[in-house]
Amino acid sequence: MEEKHRPRIEIVSTGTEILQGLYADTNAQWLSGQLLAIGLPVAYHAVVGDSIEDLESHLDVVSRRCELLIVSGGLGPTEDDINRFAIARVYGLELVEDEAAVEQMRERFARRGRPFTDANRVQALIPRGASVFYNEWGTAPGFLIEGTEGRATLVALPGPPRELRPMFDRWVRSRIVERFRPSERYLILTLHTIDLPESEINAKLGDLFDADPSVSVALLAAVGKVDIRLTGRGGDEDKVRQSLRRFHRRIEERLGPENVYGTDDQTLESVVGDLLKCNGLTVAVAESCTGGMIASRLTNVAGASSYLLEGFVTYSNEAKVARLGVARSLIERYGAVSAQVAEAMAQGARRVAQADRALSTTGIAGPTGGTAHKPVGLVYLGLAWEDGTTVAERRFLGKRNENRTYAVNAALDLLRRHLWRQTGRERASG
Amino acid sequence: MEEKHRPRIEIVSTGTEILQGLYADTNAQWLSGQLLAIGLPVAYHAVVGDSIEDLESHLDVVSRRCELLIVSGGLGPTEDDINRFAIARVYGLELVEDEAAVEQMRERFARRGRPFTDANRVQALIPRGASVFYNEWGTAPGFLIEGTEGRATLVALPGPPRELRPMFDRWVRSRIVERFRPSERYLILTLHTIDLPESEINAKLGDLFDADPSVSVALLAAVGKVDIRLTGRGGDEDKVRQSLRRFHRRIEERLGPENVYGTDDQTLESVVGDLLKCNGLTVAVAESCTGGMIASRLTNVAGASSYLLEGFVTYSNEAKVARLGVARSLIERYGAVSAQVAEAMAQGARRVAQADRALSTTGIAGPTGGTAHKPVGLVYLGLAWEDGTTVAERRFLGKRNENRTYAVNAALDLLRRHLWRQTGRERASG
Repeated sequence: MEEKHRPRIEIVSTGTEILQGLYADTNAQWLSGQLLAIGLPVAYHAVVGDSIEDLESHLDVVSRRCELLIVSGGLGPTEDDINRFAIARVYGLELVEDEAAVEQMRERFARRGRPFTDANRVQALIPRGASVFYNEWGTAPGFLIEGTEGRATLVALPGPPRELRPMFDRWVRSRIVERFRPSERYLILTLHTIDLPESEINAKLGDLFDADPSVSVALLAAVGKVDIRLTGRGGDEDKVRQSLRRFHRRIEERLGPENVYGTDDQTLESVVGDLLKCNGLTVAVAESCTGGMIASRLTNVAGASSYLLEGFVTYSNEAKVARLGVARSLIERYGAVSAQVAEAMAQGARRVAQADRALSTTGIAGPTGGTAHKPVGLVYLGLAWEDGTTVAERRFLGKRNENRTYAVNAALDLLRRHLWRQTGRERASG
Repeated sequence: MEEKHRPRIEIVSTGTEILQGLYADTNAQWLSGQLLAIGLPVAYHAVVGDSIEDLESHLDVVSRRCELLIVSGGLGPTEDDINRFAIARVYGLELVEDEAAVEQMRERFARRGRPFTDANRVQALIPRGASVFYNEWGTAPGFLIEGTEGRATLVALPGPPRELRPMFDRWVRSRIVERFRPSERYLILTLHTIDLPESEINAKLGDLFDADPSVSVALLAAVGKVDIRLTGRGGDEDKVRQSLRRFHRRIEERLGPENVYGTDDQTLESVVGDLLKCNGLTVAVAESCTGGMIASRLTNVAGASSYLLEGFVTYSNEAKVARLGVARSLIERYGAVSAQVAEAMAQGARRVAQADRALSTTGIAGPTGGTAHKPVGLVYLGLAWEDGTTVAERRFLGKRNENRTYAVNAALDLLRRHLWRQTGRERASG
């Protein structure tokens, strides 16, 4: 039987910018997700500044206590780019110029019509014996130093995510799998819910959190939506998949299947788009307080032109009257933010655009404009179809742009639930 | 004269979720920015998982080598919430129940109609002698242990950002300032540029990067935009402000003032909004490939209703004809993605909405729909005003949603530059 040793893995990100709060350490986040997916969970992240003493002493300690060390950043041509020097010192290796790397940089500079200077040449210095990862997406190459009895295998990658990620994909992942032969697979399945409070999900799923040691359950809350992230692990990929499917089914049963709108890469707008497409339906939107955000979300999805006919951003009362045929008396009587106007907007958009369905929003996003009767956060959402209209009243408690996002999600969800009910709760494929 | 000792500060975030790549460590990012602003730069970030041995050994090492240690997360009621136990052990302090914290939690649970269980009571355990930070934004209180000769001052905060941030604002910042009396102030000024490549900015500002040791310059590139972040430091706040102003002026001279569209919290849409408002002008937008994103960006700004009359999301050709009066022959002859149609869309939107200015977009966002002649990423941006129209052709090289964002930024910038030229390059206030 294969030995089930799990290597200790650490990530070090370098750069004063992260310590100053300019960026979050998204490289460590991305790398951790990639490593987990191949069965190699990460034990520790660190961020060290651009001081060579700090970095050397950190690398000296951690390279002795772990088996794989991934270091990002600090490979550029400036004085702050100290990583190759610190790594070479800690590993006791000489830095030697890699001819192929010099040539590659020279060509890159020539292609861009920029002069190749000696300052750039430093980026081709590689610890002797290390494997070089040529950089097709930027300038500085990365490298890998094989581990020894007392030192971790070390991978050095450039800091910019648009270089680090493809370099990891192209060169590093397969090398790590080959080197550590992880015995377990980690598979992740994310279920997206909307309109259920985190506390309610927590209460309804409570006993599932510890039901199976090979499946961990985590809740991630966003604006009006909660994701349920299932991480399954085990030596047999098929069994892990089965466990995840079982959890998926159970969670849908507990929460009600209509409350779980999709999985993984699916979004509210892609699910709504699939439902419209599958049923050969078209849609139009009339937006006041959301000011174009619903249309913008729907058109995030490639191919939206096959179902989105048109959007009306009727921010002013005049536009509501002139474009959607909302009766001026209705606005005068009930106010622009009212169920009556939301209904008339949806009906008007459907009629004018000759669409099968239409969504509308009117509300008070804030921070001003609220009254005791109609507070900031009050939104009416309208939906019109061939033989009916429905209006939902919602009161959101966030800041202006949170309220707008809540309203967009609630409007898309109103259409999604309507389409599910109309099409016998059958889901669109995909 | 005051001693200019700068304390070593470290941040520890706890939680397996971060090590699994579910989140980036945004608490460390936010705290670092806050500490820098009060003159206390952070030296080191670490993320440790939910193993009590790992956390204890980490805290033991770092609490001996720094003077302020901020620990976030792990204060909740579950088994994974180990921070109070690890901290108490490392500092050799007994955990005692804080009566006021129990009462506060009991009341909070009662208000929400939820039962208060013994499991929740653990959150009121505080190391003896620590100052307690009551939590008005969630459940678990934070605390502060005063440092001694051999151990850092330690601040423990809950993990959810919506609890950590107000708790830091209310209780922690002033305590830290009082304790460490930072002798320098750090002030940050961010200049926003658009339409200049990072390499060009780098080349034009090259010598400013080392011109003044008290002002550091960093470039942060986003989609089509580059921010120039100036961090000034010194004992005299007025002098730091002067240095930043001097850098600001010099950078505007080097890059051209029209290329620096704003500072700090200003956005393209807020700057455009201010220019429209100051000049008493209204605007309408007609969007095809950007599908509502321009309207949505303009309505991000509170008060946009005073200048944005209306938006048309004319995704289909029919809508372009029916809503904006674009001649069908124009679409047939030049195609929907053409300078001619962009021009007609802007003119139509201006006329129909009776606006002073109108913006339009038509293009191929991708991933499909491109041809050799009209590739993915080709976008036409139109601008109409009382006595003219202009059309810009742009070719973006990103993915679908990057291309859409590029196009929105370029369209807003087209209007901004036009308004600056028309109003004698005078800027809106604010």
